[in-house]
Amino acid sequence: MDHKSGLQSLGILVLGVCLFPTMTAAQQPVLNLIPVPAAAQTGSSSLRVDVSFTVAQTGYSEPRLDRAVDRFLRQLAHQTALPLAMKATKSTKAVLVIQTEHASKEVLEVGEDESYVLEVNASGAKLTAPTPLGTMHGLQTFLQLVDVSPDGFAAPAVTIQDKPRFPWRGLMIDSARHFIPLDIIKRNLDGMEAVKMNVFHWHLSENQGFRIESKKFPKLHELGSDNLYYTQDEVRDLIAYARDRGIRVVPEFDMPGHSTAWFVGHPELASGKGPYEIERRWGIFDPAMDPTNEKLYKFLDEFISEMARIFPDHFFHIGGDEVNGKEWDANPKIQAFKKEHGLQSNDALQAYFSGRVQKLVVKHGKTVVGWDEVLVPGVPKDIVIQSWRGQASLAQAAKQGYRGILSNGYYLDLGWPAARHYAVDPMSGDAANLSPEEKQRVLGGESCMWAEYVNAENIDSRIWPRNAAIAERFWSSQEVRDPASMYARLNFISARLEWLGLTHKTYSRKMIQRIAGAASLDELAALRALTDVVEPVKDYTRQPLAPAEPTSATPMNRVVDAVPLESDSARHFGELVDQFLATSCRDADSETRLRAQFTAWRDNDAKLQPLAQRSFLVKEVATRSQDLSALGTVGLSALDAIDKGQPAPDLWKAQQLAVIEQAKKPKAQLLLMPAPAVQKLVEAAAAGGACAAAKP
Amino acid sequence: MDHKSGLQSLGILVLGVCLFPTMTAAQQPVLNLIPVPAAAQTGSSSLRVDVSFTVAQTGYSEPRLDRAVDRFLRQLAHQTALPLAMKATKSTKAVLVIQTEHASKEVLEVGEDESYVLEVNASGAKLTAPTPLGTMHGLQTFLQLVDVSPDGFAAPAVTIQDKPRFPWRGLMIDSARHFIPLDIIKRNLDGMEAVKMNVFHWHLSENQGFRIESKKFPKLHELGSDNLYYTQDEVRDLIAYARDRGIRVVPEFDMPGHSTAWFVGHPELASGKGPYEIERRWGIFDPAMDPTNEKLYKFLDEFISEMARIFPDHFFHIGGDEVNGKEWDANPKIQAFKKEHGLQSNDALQAYFSGRVQKLVVKHGKTVVGWDEVLVPGVPKDIVIQSWRGQASLAQAAKQGYRGILSNGYYLDLGWPAARHYAVDPMSGDAANLSPEEKQRVLGGESCMWAEYVNAENIDSRIWPRNAAIAERFWSSQEVRDPASMYARLNFISARLEWLGLTHKTYSRKMIQRIAGAASLDELAALRALTDVVEPVKDYTRQPLAPAEPTSATPMNRVVDAVPLESDSARHFGELVDQFLATSCRDADSETRLRAQFTAWRDNDAKLQPLAQRSFLVKEVATRSQDLSALGTVGLSALDAIDKGQPAPDLWKAQQLAVIEQAKKPKAQLLLMPAPAVQKLVEAAAAGGACAAAKP
Repeated sequence: MDHKSGLQSLGILVLGVCLFPTMTAAQQPVLNLIPVPAAAQTGSSSLRVDVSFTVAQTGYSEPRLDRAVDRFLRQLAHQTALPLAMKATKSTKAVLVIQTEHASKEVLEVGEDESYVLEVNASGAKLTAPTPLGTMHGLQTFLQLVDVSPDGFAAPAVTIQDKPRFPWRGLMIDSARHFIPLDIIKRNLDGMEAVKMNVFHWHLSENQGFRIESKKFPKLHELGSDNLYYTQDEVRDLIAYARDRGIRVVPEFDMPGHSTAWFVGHPELASGKGPYEIERRWGIFDPAMDPTNEKLYKFLDEFISEMARIFPDHFFHIGGDEVNGKEWDANPKIQAFKKEHGLQSNDALQAYFSGRVQKLVVKHGKTVVGWDEVLVPGVPKDIVIQSWRGQASLAQAAKQGYRGILSNGYYLDLGWPAARHYAVDPMSGDAANLSPEEKQRVLGGESCMWAEYVNAENIDSRIWPRNAAIAERFWSSQEVRDPASMYARLNFISARLEWLGLTHKTYSRKMIQRIAGAASLDELAALRALTDVVEPVKDYTRQPLAPAEPTSATPMNRVVDAVPLESDSARHFGELVDQFLATSCRDADSETRLRAQFTAWRDNDAKLQPLAQRSFLVKEVATRSQDLSALGTVGLSALDAIDKGQPAPDLWKAQQLAVIEQAKKPKAQLLLMPAPAVQKLVEAAAAGGACAAAKP
Repeated sequence: MDHKSGLQSLGILVLGVCLFPTMTAAQQPVLNLIPVPAAAQTGSSSLRVDVSFTVAQTGYSEPRLDRAVDRFLRQLAHQTALPLAMKATKSTKAVLVIQTEHASKEVLEVGEDESYVLEVNASGAKLTAPTPLGTMHGLQTFLQLVDVSPDGFAAPAVTIQDKPRFPWRGLMIDSARHFIPLDIIKRNLDGMEAVKMNVFHWHLSENQGFRIESKKFPKLHELGSDNLYYTQDEVRDLIAYARDRGIRVVPEFDMPGHSTAWFVGHPELASGKGPYEIERRWGIFDPAMDPTNEKLYKFLDEFISEMARIFPDHFFHIGGDEVNGKEWDANPKIQAFKKEHGLQSNDALQAYFSGRVQKLVVKHGKTVVGWDEVLVPGVPKDIVIQSWRGQASLAQAAKQGYRGILSNGYYLDLGWPAARHYAVDPMSGDAANLSPEEKQRVLGGESCMWAEYVNAENIDSRIWPRNAAIAERFWSSQEVRDPASMYARLNFISARLEWLGLTHKTYSRKMIQRIAGAASLDELAALRALTDVVEPVKDYTRQPLAPAEPTSATPMNRVVDAVPLESDSARHFGELVDQFLATSCRDADSETRLRAQFTAWRDNDAKLQPLAQRSFLVKEVATRSQDLSALGTVGLSALDAIDKGQPAPDLWKAQQLAVIEQAKKPKAQLLLMPAPAVQKLVEAAAAGGACAAAKP
């Protein structure tokens, strides 16, 4: 687990500011790589990639490597549309020569060597790696390097020496709240491979569903899943698919809370009386396993035994989060047990439970992973804490000797912009002050895709492209943190990810089309102009702002379900406003573009209203459309005021700000993203003097 | 085969002008149905489609119908995102009650009853049909009727009595010149089902490839396909898939010409000396089977026997087109045979061959279909002529007693706009003058997707949405022919077809992204502005205009491969110009929009040029970008001149027309579609007097 020492030990150019300097969004980075490699030296030439392209494998080989090379060639053919020779050769005269030294572990381990060196020059490329894990990462890097050039497809000359900063770089997908079909999981694993993530954390049980076949306890999936579950064969297939991509699969069975779906078939495990039904609502619910029931541990022993044989990974996630204790408090037997055993609180009761389960997990050869709550006094040191609470919690765990991974800051469902996730570092905050030894215990992090408001149709768009920014955070140096560079490269990888079958761009368009129905092209354009600049409300505000209590049966066909969680158009608009203000409002080109945008917004509502009369899904956003129109009018008025060169009247300012306040309110669970930037213009106009006062 | 008498015999409102009046593109038809049904009476209410929606099957049932209903429910859930009950009930209280009377033929026959009646009112819907074929058509109609409404998803109240005009409504796909994977064929069959086409004509052998496994003669596919062929199991699966959708599968094995790929493994069948290689170029080539070789007929007897057992359809296509006779002329043995048998010409020799093969086909229980060339004196009357030559040829065949189908006018690869295909009617031209009995012999038509310039990546975009317009031509009354109505409905079905997995919209965008590479969003927008208004050159001009001789190995990654064959944007621009001129240039709104468009075009080239420096695929279209920019300048100049209200000077006109001439020239195998409409404005400006003289 030497993940932190790698950067320096390579002894060559350390990246960050040097190759990826601060730039505006319109500029392109020198290398379109995400994540940024540990070290790279660029040359001046490039390697032409044409129909004569060949690959040779030398050194250690195994079927997984052959498949990786096949996949690489298919992907290269796909992204170039060149008719390439689709088989690797053994000739060292190949254009790309791969040299792998030895095998990786049969069951992937935390901290295995994932490094590689990739050298590209005008005459060829060489990829060397100690293990297939590094080879596979290097192939992904090569794929990202190949792009159109002035005279054909080419990869720039470069020497890359790369290894990850953290050994645990994960994506959690909640397949329980909404069932996510296997082919969709697979294409997300393809996306993970592309950005060098190496842990798929599979959240398989919840109040709302038990999603894996149990042969020992078939009532779990038969009664707890609405018949939406993965068979064991499918899961084994998925694990093999992940291993082929250098990805570990860590299953999570959340207990003792978040477990209503278990109790539909097995009410005897619960602390309450039952009967239980699959939960359809969202939130934290009362049902919890009965930690005082010895039959529960016998059941879990057999269950963990079964699951431990299906999932080869050394880690086994037992959840442990958000037990509200109400069923425990209401059960006299449990109250008696607590007294009898001197358990002063429900936390202590849960610690007792966790301790018992931890022993079962160890008995079946695994190490426990759990959310923050499992970390209570006396828990064995070998467990891994997954922190949804934050770096302070993680640092505290590390100080106590526990290994941990950070998920706070990486919840994809909260709708944050990529830059906000990107700014969160597992080693920042309290973690920055850890001793070197303690820092080693911070293994990395995981992004989390909780599934209250995602389903098969839109999950890709909730994960990508933002997840690539998080992947970079886990792989690249802490110094790599310029958001403008990140966004430019994110834009690039986002298009590339679509070649893997991910639908994060296309599905949003299709869902907008569904909302529009039989619209004219002008109406559809007006709807897109609006949906381009709205985002779903953030954090945990979606439920309180819902028109009716949302359930797992609520149709997800509304604008809030269809638009991306981050609006590129709104971000660019904000950049344009900042650019205009940065020139003291003297940049004529920016002003022209702003005027055109405001005029289009002002006039957009009239174009959209006929459709709002015909489609209930458009009607829901009609007030948002009016707000956008009003923002356009305010923007034009602000530009007019700025052009006068004198401070605009206070009354005018107050009127404009009142309009902006309306626009800032969430409506239809949507935020109108350009509002704050328009406000900047209004304040600049009020300050007057060619905006001098408004300089950011 | 009572396909023509149906419209009148229903005795109710015959559609055409009445329900689908002439409209501008912005208007929506009363019913968004394609093809337009034979008769429909709309009501004023609508049927709400929500989570309580149910379907019941009554009357005759069979597994195929169950699967059709399952597919219908999945599709309905998909297009609404409603969590519907996914199983049909037997309760007649269901929202949609289906009543099928009896089975259709086990092997689908030409002219089977495909009619259905669909009644929708506020309380429910009833679908009745004599056979599952009608039921399946009616389900597709219902799916098209359901759309967003002011208060949820709904289908308008309507009574539809529908049946096809022609019994043979086909799509031919050439899987030979470029191999098309099976899943892509399948989604195109889904598209065919949606628009009620019922024949999939599978062009399986060509100079460039032999695409089906032969167990009797394995060298055919092993040596003739580059290992790109369909196994017999796959073909049987595809045939079952087609039958499930009411679609017949007619295989074509083109002979005696277009057969080089056969000869790679079996040179003994050819008229030349060989050896033969798979042809990589496009065109008409010399190799042809040797009609004088008795072993050829023995071979074909066994081969047709094998294929006849795989393909259950009653028809078997033997091609027969485009034999240039050079190998025959060069072979003394063949010359001697001709003399000996009194065969005065190569046509006569081919007639001899066709006669022999026809007997073999009949021996194995099938009826021959062939291209025009097979129709020579003495050919038995039961063959079916597929006419690539046109209605005259078809009419002549009908007069002689032959049945025929029209493909002239429906070649999708020629790049025609949908309206041009739509205007071609199998019963127009010479066919209009046939006697009623002769007219019965015109069975319908087939669109043809020849595959020189299509592959797995872009084939959907070359077939759809235009093929839906052709499907309407074959199904709907000859009176249904308003292009504005067709385009409005085509726009609707085009979006719907994407729900079936067709990629005609998304893939074009991905290919443009590949061409752009790591472009900024502004650059990508500039590229799209250009690619939105170009189309590939038409008819057979692509090969002579190619930068180098195209082959089957030529990468298809250029702009000409990526853009749709019909530009919606250019069509709308042309409509806008016409609208402006129709008001004697007094429509201020049109003028504003035209000015905005011209300004955007004028300024677009400067935005695109940096990308043209970086991407060879963009560089290829740099001159097109300059031409578009020049068109923008000309357009603005024309509007300025028009605003003056006086005839513009001759010199000015000559200068503008010179620019337009440049823009009209094909470059990079692309046409700049707005050029003719800009020319109209220039001519209007030159005529002066508020454009009075330029009224269209």
